[in-house]
Amino acid sequence: MVGRNPTPAIGAEQRLKELGITLPPPPTPFGNYVEGVRIGRLLYLSGMLPVIDGKPQVIGRLGAELATDEGRRAAEIATLSALSAIRAALGSLDKVTAVAKLGVYIATVGDFRDHPKVADGASDLLAKIFGPELLSGRIVLGVASISLGLPVEIELLVEVTD
Amino acid sequence: MVGRNPTPAIGAEQRLKELGITLPPPPTPFGNYVEGVRIGRLLYLSGMLPVIDGKPQVIGRLGAELATDEGRRAAEIATLSALSAIRAALGSLDKVTAVAKLGVYIATVGDFRDHPKVADGASDLLAKIFGPELLSGRIVLGVASISLGLPVEIELLVEVTD
Amino acid sequence: MVGRNPTPAIGAEQRLKELGITLPPPPTPFGNYVEGVRIGRLLYLSGMLPVIDGKPQVIGRLGAELATDEGRRAAEIATLSALSAIRAALGSLDKVTAVAKLGVYIATVGDFRDHPKVADGASDLLAKIFGPELLSGRIVLGVASISLGLPVEIELLVEVTD
Repeated sequence: MVGRNPTPAIGAEQRLKELGITLPPPPTPFGNYVEGVRIGRLLYLSGMLPVIDGKPQVIGRLGAELATDEGRRAAEIATLSALSAIRAALGSLDKVTAVAKLGVYIATVGDFRDHPKVADGASDLLAKIFGPELLSGRIVLGVASISLGLPVEIELLVEVTD
Repeated sequence: MVGRNPTPAIGAEQRLKELGITLPPPPTPFGNYVEGVRIGRLLYLSGMLPVIDGKPQVIGRLGAELATDEGRRAAEIATLSALSAIRAALGSLDKVTAVAKLGVYIATVGDFRDHPKVADGASDLLAKIFGPELLSGRIVLGVASISLGLPVEIELLVEVTD
Repeated sequence: MVGRNPTPAIGAEQRLKELGITLPPPPTPFGNYVEGVRIGRLLYLSGMLPVIDGKPQVIGRLGAELATDEGRRAAEIATLSALSAIRAALGSLDKVTAVAKLGVYIATVGDFRDHPKVADGASDLLAKIFGPELLSGRIVLGVASISLGLPVEIELLVEVTD
């Protein structure tokens, strides 16, 4: 349950290439803050949204306008944006050694209950890119609303190495 | 306000025995993540739910189907699950020296306002088991929904020793 | 994006004086927890509310009873309370070297979308007091409800020096 990933056989940057994934440009803040702050071995990433080049990619809430699959896709886009922010902060994704916390916040209406399936959009992508040996903690919550009417927001607290 | 609990007179494991509390089996993830990740002196626990052996113990929201006491009880069950996850991660609860963050997230409808009373279900249990000298920070929020229709989710970031 | 603020030209305490801002008394807990816990270089602050001397300063939700400006003002008041808690914990605001995470949680109804404008009430005040060189990460979420019917809750994880 508890551990770290000191010497992965293949790095995340190499895996990204093999998967043919190109990261979007790093996100830009919507206010007076920055996208990431490093304190010692911890990098805290600001809330990451399914927005590319300032354009919302999906609008709506789960349980109303959006189906579970669309929420899952929004979680994937927000995660790609987060990875781009991490690369901008550290120079390379290979410096990530664990994900202490992946927060997945989903805008929901009514009695939507499939939160884990939406959140797996983020978790499965992280596992694909960092490898199954990467440990990730996770919390998933259904919130009332997200900036700009977006359906998903991602939060990451990662362990990094130099 | 700020401090730590280096040499408790009685350890948490001993207190559990004296209180006659048996922890439930450690929770299992609902997806591609683990229940706890340790980084240095910090252990981050994934969102903990009032679920035992994969079975939801309480379903509903505060301000609608559930009364404050039922929410408090759900917070207690989620906390017992969290303690079981901590023991599985560290071997013993005695290695916990502080709770930096206890997050209590409560599914609410309408104008429910008794969040602190629900959250005290978690805080009072932690104080009973770790002793009044254990410091705990806390944040409490009313959310729109929680996985599986559960009423409460608990998040813990704890300081640990070896 | 990533860095720290080791030797500010003017400290936060001096800036507060120049701005003529007097902090409210430090907040007191609503339950069995403390307002801040320090672990190494990190100080975690419990959820901070727009409450002064135990009295709620603003009640209501964004998208219903309150306009964006009133939410922004509530975020400012909660931030002043947080600063008072930090000073009580550390002795001086000058010991803060970065804000890893500023969480701004806003009680919203319906399709409210101006979360960033409300959150800027907190971010702009932090920038005014700590100077533009202070780095701050940020996450903003619309929640269903907050203790006592308050519109905004603030969470801070800060890096501190001795």
